[in-house]
Amino acid sequence: MVSSEVSPRPLSSTLLFGLAPIASWFIVRPFLDPIPSLPGLYTSIGFSIFAFMATLHLVPALGPTFVKADLKGRDLLKVYATPIPESLGLVCASVYILALILFIPFAFSDSLSMGSTQTPEGIFVSEFPHSRLSVYLSSLLSLLMATILGFLDDVFDIRWRHKLPIPIIASIPLLMVYFAEGGNTHIVVPLPLRFLLGSLVNLGPLYYLYMSLLSTFATNSINILAGINGSEVSQALIIAISVILNDLLYLPWPIGFHLPVHLLGSKAEVEFGGVWSAGMAYGSKELVERHLFSLYFMLPLVAVCSGFMYHNWYPARAFPGDTLCYVTGMAFAVVGIQAHFSKTLLLFFLPQIFNFVLSCPQLFGLVPCPRHRVPRYVLHHHLTLSLSDRMDGWTRFDADTNLLHPSKAILMKPPSKLAATVLRILSILKLVDLTVHPSGVILETTNLTILNFFLVRLGPMNEKRLVQVLMCCQIGGSVLAFSVRYGLAGLVYDGDRR
Amino acid sequence: MVSSEVSPRPLSSTLLFGLAPIASWFIVRPFLDPIPSLPGLYTSIGFSIFAFMATLHLVPALGPTFVKADLKGRDLLKVYATPIPESLGLVCASVYILALILFIPFAFSDSLSMGSTQTPEGIFVSEFPHSRLSVYLSSLLSLLMATILGFLDDVFDIRWRHKLPIPIIASIPLLMVYFAEGGNTHIVVPLPLRFLLGSLVNLGPLYYLYMSLLSTFATNSINILAGINGSEVSQALIIAISVILNDLLYLPWPIGFHLPVHLLGSKAEVEFGGVWSAGMAYGSKELVERHLFSLYFMLPLVAVCSGFMYHNWYPARAFPGDTLCYVTGMAFAVVGIQAHFSKTLLLFFLPQIFNFVLSCPQLFGLVPCPRHRVPRYVLHHHLTLSLSDRMDGWTRFDADTNLLHPSKAILMKPPSKLAATVLRILSILKLVDLTVHPSGVILETTNLTILNFFLVRLGPMNEKRLVQVLMCCQIGGSVLAFSVRYGLAGLVYDGDRR
Repeated sequence: MVSSEVSPRPLSSTLLFGLAPIASWFIVRPFLDPIPSLPGLYTSIGFSIFAFMATLHLVPALGPTFVKADLKGRDLLKVYATPIPESLGLVCASVYILALILFIPFAFSDSLSMGSTQTPEGIFVSEFPHSRLSVYLSSLLSLLMATILGFLDDVFDIRWRHKLPIPIIASIPLLMVYFAEGGNTHIVVPLPLRFLLGSLVNLGPLYYLYMSLLSTFATNSINILAGINGSEVSQALIIAISVILNDLLYLPWPIGFHLPVHLLGSKAEVEFGGVWSAGMAYGSKELVERHLFSLYFMLPLVAVCSGFMYHNWYPARAFPGDTLCYVTGMAFAVVGIQAHFSKTLLLFFLPQIFNFVLSCPQLFGLVPCPRHRVPRYVLHHHLTLSLSDRMDGWTRFDADTNLLHPSKAILMKPPSKLAATVLRILSILKLVDLTVHPSGVILETTNLTILNFFLVRLGPMNEKRLVQVLMCCQIGGSVLAFSVRYGLAGLVYDGDRR
Repeated sequence: MVSSEVSPRPLSSTLLFGLAPIASWFIVRPFLDPIPSLPGLYTSIGFSIFAFMATLHLVPALGPTFVKADLKGRDLLKVYATPIPESLGLVCASVYILALILFIPFAFSDSLSMGSTQTPEGIFVSEFPHSRLSVYLSSLLSLLMATILGFLDDVFDIRWRHKLPIPIIASIPLLMVYFAEGGNTHIVVPLPLRFLLGSLVNLGPLYYLYMSLLSTFATNSINILAGINGSEVSQALIIAISVILNDLLYLPWPIGFHLPVHLLGSKAEVEFGGVWSAGMAYGSKELVERHLFSLYFMLPLVAVCSGFMYHNWYPARAFPGDTLCYVTGMAFAVVGIQAHFSKTLLLFFLPQIFNFVLSCPQLFGLVPCPRHRVPRYVLHHHLTLSLSDRMDGWTRFDADTNLLHPSKAILMKPPSKLAATVLRILSILKLVDLTVHPSGVILETTNLTILNFFLVRLGPMNEKRLVQVLMCCQIGGSVLAFSVRYGLAGLVYDGDRR
């Protein structure tokens, strides 16, 4: 049954034999003299490389098992109907969480050697950081719950309106531990509003609402930007890399360097370098620890996402299922909440925010919403061929005309005045293409997603190109995010971070 | 398709309306003056009642969803072939874990009021017990992993030899946090061996092996004693109640009473009563906390098991699947390890130990092991009826002759000398029934399980009676366990508990 189009991609054993010793070195390094200043980071990198290798191997190895258990799907945007294993995000999630669990003893070992390094402030911590361990464990609990719920969603095929609140359930462990530990519910007020609210506002219960909404958003916004090969995992990968780059700014680098952030409009001259007094952390041990925490969660995420992407890349040999979206979304929410940079995190979700806002008229029932809103797959020459040509059309399949067109929602009855106005505005903004009856009634609209928007704006393209456009957009969003965060943010926030 | 035999059992709305206010009272009580000495216990009871109600309602409500997702099975010991929803242990596990997660803020609130009660030793704790929170969270992680792995086992139908080590994976969070916290790996040596080993022995890494083997045993021993309606859940229920009774002995009861443990051969006169100096805890705050921890995990477990048992009782309307065995087994391992009474816990597993030891010749391949070892279902009169009688045999089905007979393993080739000897010894002990050829070669043996043993010893009986016999055996085992623990243990251990 397995055609060559969907047979597993070959794995280079040379690469893997090369990676194993590198990963081992990273794990062994913290035990060798001189002990590095951040030993946990070495271990995390070592574990991440192993997680990458495990994902790369397990996804094709377990594919047939998933197909046998009826976890499979047809690729809607391909000519072949071979079932592709679905829900393999479960494998990614399992490898990811297992790596994080095995990392527990190492995550907090560095508090010892950290204490023994000479700090300008003379910080010395000898006690075991129980509180940080609780935070780490509650994050793991939320990730595990996201995994279970994502997998249940795949098995039971929960309807999307019912699954919107699922991430709230998964975020309960986070909230409970935050509450049990007497977590801070104050937020720093932007400078222009301080004359009204003061410099700190206690949100109280609203802060918990904010946290659970953040996990809901992070999860669902990736889940609704799906449908083409590689879309979910590439979004997750780019966001995770962006978070890592942001975290790196706060680490105590042994080398000193400058970033020209003053060019972006920041008032403060930022200097990097020197142990502990380094980077954006400005000598705050707490900020360094928060960003280390974030790195510990993001490094293995990048690893499993890259490993999975190899098999999910066009033409996909494995589908992620909802599990991957749930786990990656929850991982972002976890680091945003626990490492206290949720506003920066949201900046990395610019394409998702755009997609969500664009989708709102369909999500909230103003415009009809079909079951699938993925771009349409059209074999161009296929439509104009004679019957005999058509019959062997599958074999004469030409990848050059393998184009995707925006999919459309048919308006069975004339839209309400509000809906018509919204659609016309979107059309003027070139966000949708409308099919209008000569009488002026809107008959059809392209579906309100960022993928269809790309196709409307840039014309039909093949699936691989479309996911590349999406990735470029995501990268562009991150570049913009960094400019805003380290440029414009200086205008509305001072250095006060609590 | 749903016949009356398997339509969901009716639920009494009066009972449920009555339970809701009782549960609410337990949850509200800790906030009312005078604050009880163990406020967390009230909340736990309240949550457990709600968990009972949730399980009672959700199991029948979600049954059709499970059947639709192909999580269903035919009841092999019934005449009807109607599919019964399988894996509903997942519902129990979800309710159970959600109750435990929502309980997080309450589990540690009592440390405050505990501190404010007058303790004879003047113990006063004002700091938040981060370390206990970590232990609680790592236990939850292990339970969640057991849930995922159990459900995966149900979905992917993992072969039993492959699934034996699965609980070890689920116990990793426990072990990692135990290690990260620098957990104690010493054990107290029994008095007769102290001249050799001293009073304490450091097991080191062996202690971690012991912990992971405990979870493997607790999980698999329940899983292999399965196959008839209500067997898994009734074992879990009785073990959980036994653990609760044991925990209650260590709580600071406001009333004073004596237990005649000296009758059981204990050297120490045990006195109960008086706050903190009470019970077997002898004023040790740590022992009270450990057993409170155990109660927090066992009370909701009893709740979900009772709720599920209502639907799993003969004739079963829902099957537990492996998920229930994994979660309950892991819950027992968790309390045994974290509350440091693993030896006492093992005593509550006497029937499971008996079943495991009896099964060994089949598990380790000495005697052939068929796929299913559940007792055989025979319609007695069915076998002797004429064809026409047989054809309407299903309608003339007589519940009185609805008997189970021991199932048999056929020895395709003559057994090895060792196997023959083992089987003959088991036969002399009346543990099995053998079919022997006149030449002396063993042709058949009843399968080596405790259920078949009951049928061999007590004669054929119906399924409901068999599960009742199993439950009596489990209760008898617990009574014996208490006698051994509080009677004989005094001969080999002094009061030293570490």
